[in-house]
Amino acid sequence: AILQAVRAALVAGPLAGKRVLVTSGPTHEPIDPVRYIANRSSGAQGTAIAAALRDLGAQVVFVTGPAQAARPEGVEVIEVETARQMRAAVLAALPVDAAVFAAAVADWRVASEHLSKIKKTKGALPVLEFTENPDILAEVAQLPEARPRLVVGFAAETDDVVAHATAKRARKGCDWILANDVSPATGIMGGPDNAVVLISDEGAEVWPRMAKAEVAARLAQRIAEALMA
Amino acid sequence: AILQAVRAALVAGPLAGKRVLVTSGPTHEPIDPVRYIANRSSGAQGTAIAAALRDLGAQVVFVTGPAQAARPEGVEVIEVETARQMRAAVLAALPVDAAVFAAAVADWRVASEHLSKIKKTKGALPVLEFTENPDILAEVAQLPEARPRLVVGFAAETDDVVAHATAKRARKGCDWILANDVSPATGIMGGPDNAVVLISDEGAEVWPRMAKAEVAARLAQRIAEALMA
Repeated sequence: AILQAVRAALVAGPLAGKRVLVTSGPTHEPIDPVRYIANRSSGAQGTAIAAALRDLGAQVVFVTGPAQAARPEGVEVIEVETARQMRAAVLAALPVDAAVFAAAVADWRVASEHLSKIKKTKGALPVLEFTENPDILAEVAQLPEARPRLVVGFAAETDDVVAHATAKRARKGCDWILANDVSPATGIMGGPDNAVVLISDEGAEVWPRMAKAEVAARLAQRIAEALMA
Repeated sequence: AILQAVRAALVAGPLAGKRVLVTSGPTHEPIDPVRYIANRSSGAQGTAIAAALRDLGAQVVFVTGPAQAARPEGVEVIEVETARQMRAAVLAALPVDAAVFAAAVADWRVASEHLSKIKKTKGALPVLEFTENPDILAEVAQLPEARPRLVVGFAAETDDVVAHATAKRARKGCDWILANDVSPATGIMGGPDNAVVLISDEGAEVWPRMAKAEVAARLAQRIAEALMA
């Protein structure tokens, strides 16, 4: 049986037979029929991760918000717009062996979406009240029964990257956090490269700046090792 | 001289020698380095109008926000992101013979953009205060000296389309308003068709639902007639 597993891994990749969920892209949270709040996520990193996991033989479920990046081929693609839709799609995709939450989910949405366009009235400015969106990463990482064996979150930070991401890992209850600095000066958001720090129970591992496809390949390899351990 | 003008028009199109400005697409108004407020504008109608004006021989300056639609060829393209950037680009493009403001400019922006990412803190929701964006259409329509001969605005409405658009035309001081119903049920936003009402000093003229390219061709023809009158 062990020999058989080794042979299957050599032929079909180390993640053959494993089901992995990847979320990607921004979410759009409607204010009214024509306006919405969005995040500056191109979906490039999440898309690259889905492709890298597929290349190692995984069966990938790819839940994506309205992202610019072309959808990866050879994976199951589920398109959503809001955080609430993403949560529903994620929960429906379980059980999975591993889940990578690369989407930039909006933390907040407008408390009461306007069903007709908010008119511009001289001197009167709109007041937007916000409410918290579901915390998909924390919810899945803390599921009593259907928790994936490996839960990976992302942290997009603009300052104190390692400290913020380490605190986030503990707060969410996930196994790993891939943290990056999205300050405009880094050129990472929307750019070809990424510079990440992998936060795990072993501490912070700084990866050199490399192409997003390389970050994805390295992460997929680590996920394969974790699931085979 | 008249014969010469007629000959030029036959060869190079009725807008040969005319400079026309078209704005298009949404604007993005930053909340912090990763979040922004946007409009659901694909840029399809503005892009089609720029192409139609070019086809009638106009020299077109195309000022566009971050739109999905591919940029039109054979026109001068100026890319902007925010309403303030769009205003600056528009004023810099003057003088023009006609200006078509098809962009879905955000009416408001966040009063004080956060320079680092707003952190999610348990129980604490962000309060966003808004301030009015420049009203580019009204400003250009009321310019004392550099006002284009023909100023055309757009009105994206979800109810009482003609009444709202007629009031908007008077308030802005523009010559024409092309009004459309962008209620989600119409499928117009992001879709291939448009159904518009042209509001002028002669009242409201309802155009049948047609492809956005046909709306553009018809509008360009009307602009040519107005500039030749």
